[in-house]
Amino acid sequence: MEPFPDRLIAAIQRKGCAISVGLDPRLDLMPPELVRRHFARYGHTHQAASMAIRDFNLSLLDAITPHVPSVKVQVAFYEAFGPPGTQVFAETLTEARRRGLIVIADVKRGDIEMTAKAYATAYLASSLPGVELAPGFDTDAITVNPYLGGDGVLPFVEAATAHNKGLFVLVKTSNPTSGDLQDLLVDGTPVYERMAKRVREWGRGTAGHMGYQAVGAVVGATYPAEAARLRALLPQAYFLVPGYGAQGAEAEDVRACFNPDGYGALVNSSRAIIYAYRSEMYRSLGEAHFAQAAEAAILAMKDDLNTVLGRCT
Amino acid sequence: MEPFPDRLIAAIQRKGCAISVGLDPRLDLMPPELVRRHFARYGHTHQAASMAIRDFNLSLLDAITPHVPSVKVQVAFYEAFGPPGTQVFAETLTEARRRGLIVIADVKRGDIEMTAKAYATAYLASSLPGVELAPGFDTDAITVNPYLGGDGVLPFVEAATAHNKGLFVLVKTSNPTSGDLQDLLVDGTPVYERMAKRVREWGRGTAGHMGYQAVGAVVGATYPAEAARLRALLPQAYFLVPGYGAQGAEAEDVRACFNPDGYGALVNSSRAIIYAYRSEMYRSLGEAHFAQAAEAAILAMKDDLNTVLGRCT
Repeated sequence: MEPFPDRLIAAIQRKGCAISVGLDPRLDLMPPELVRRHFARYGHTHQAASMAIRDFNLSLLDAITPHVPSVKVQVAFYEAFGPPGTQVFAETLTEARRRGLIVIADVKRGDIEMTAKAYATAYLASSLPGVELAPGFDTDAITVNPYLGGDGVLPFVEAATAHNKGLFVLVKTSNPTSGDLQDLLVDGTPVYERMAKRVREWGRGTAGHMGYQAVGAVVGATYPAEAARLRALLPQAYFLVPGYGAQGAEAEDVRACFNPDGYGALVNSSRAIIYAYRSEMYRSLGEAHFAQAAEAAILAMKDDLNTVLGRCT
Repeated sequence: MEPFPDRLIAAIQRKGCAISVGLDPRLDLMPPELVRRHFARYGHTHQAASMAIRDFNLSLLDAITPHVPSVKVQVAFYEAFGPPGTQVFAETLTEARRRGLIVIADVKRGDIEMTAKAYATAYLASSLPGVELAPGFDTDAITVNPYLGGDGVLPFVEAATAHNKGLFVLVKTSNPTSGDLQDLLVDGTPVYERMAKRVREWGRGTAGHMGYQAVGAVVGATYPAEAARLRALLPQAYFLVPGYGAQGAEAEDVRACFNPDGYGALVNSSRAIIYAYRSEMYRSLGEAHFAQAAEAAILAMKDDLNTVLGRCT
């Protein structure tokens, strides 16, 4: 298997865009008839919710696979339904990888060293003493929370490097209050910049053939000025860029996340794609054709990004 | 159901100590014969590992329930084995609650608002639109990572308050590099103190009858000076105190985590209890009697804490 950044870039080249679709299933936004059908069959249970999500995801995967290089799967929306939800999370990852998509498990894990090793075993590869099993969940990359410092992140770096997987460390997140902690000034430097410097250290020696490293950063599209600064600090890191679409960022906002070579960023959109069937634009397709609406929304997003970026397709 | 801090305190009074046992199953430390038996039966699979963990935990729960008020279950050691591991995580929580233990799921979750709501649905209670199901996992409290700021924490506070559950927000963690981020000085104040002030805000209005709030803090026993400062800043917050035992902290170190009323801290020990059968002291019992060794180690820890604290029993 090639290094993660090379596999990601090859997929971006193949699909002609740097888009990741977020598979964030929410019962209140999913097609009501699909949800009703599963609740009618399995009762008012976690199993019903999980099977509805499974159906929803499989249809989406078929529709989006020809068009995008990657999916980001947010585990919280599966954990919400307990073990059956986690089972569907695992199946979603496996089905997406089987289709050749680069799969990012958005788990934001982080803990003390031995615990971080256990998480690395779950998502990247066996690094736990006494464990010689496949990872618990089948992914290409995960997101990592750095609140616990270096010894909470290094086990992920080691596992990713050893097994050609990738990491995206939370640096400057897309949400309104990300500045509460991340923008605090330490000797005149915001925390997110200090974190970027750590990402640079962790990424050292992990570069693939294209020069990009296995240790990337999560940088919200909703903060373009900060993104520009981070791009300059981290020329070799891939950015996972949430916030496009429903969170309010537009194509112009993500420009700063890309390098002059046209690479360096993967722009994620979740709600605006997978729930496109609910929007003014695609409502006429009807809820049964939610996957077709998602496909149309992806094509529109590709156009939108390419108009501004002038690359990638 | 009573407010979480009142339930916790009642359990502490009943059991005569403020100890939580960490159920952190590791194949390399668990009794080899128990692990071998399950691998022989289920093959070299995640299922085998998970069933071994299940057996290990059930024996431990029976042995420790008479002596301690609480268990802390670190989800990473279960996620490592994929969906079967998650299933055993869920069963462990349920079995522990069924025995009347206060169950803390050490999940360190944290994300943007809507995603944090999904996590709250998973562990505390339904707060996700369109979801009217029981929580995915059966807990009394969880740990929360605050890297994403206020809107990533508030959904947990709301869910905990509404359903008499508890939170422990990561403030000053026990690991060697916790200072990388948490000790950075912002206008002369370390990040962990600023985080403590946020915990105070989040805890406002959540106090139970005993005056303690539903929003607590994770404060490592390995940093007693910082703990003393945090105790002064957060008189009404319960501290979840990891680091005792295998991580090197001793009874004297945790004294600063307690209030003068003898409450305010729950001291966790994982490895030194559940793998006590491996230690010099209890090795003669034999690996088959790991639960008995754990029981003996708990009694020793109780003595140790009470000698220093002079309360709680």
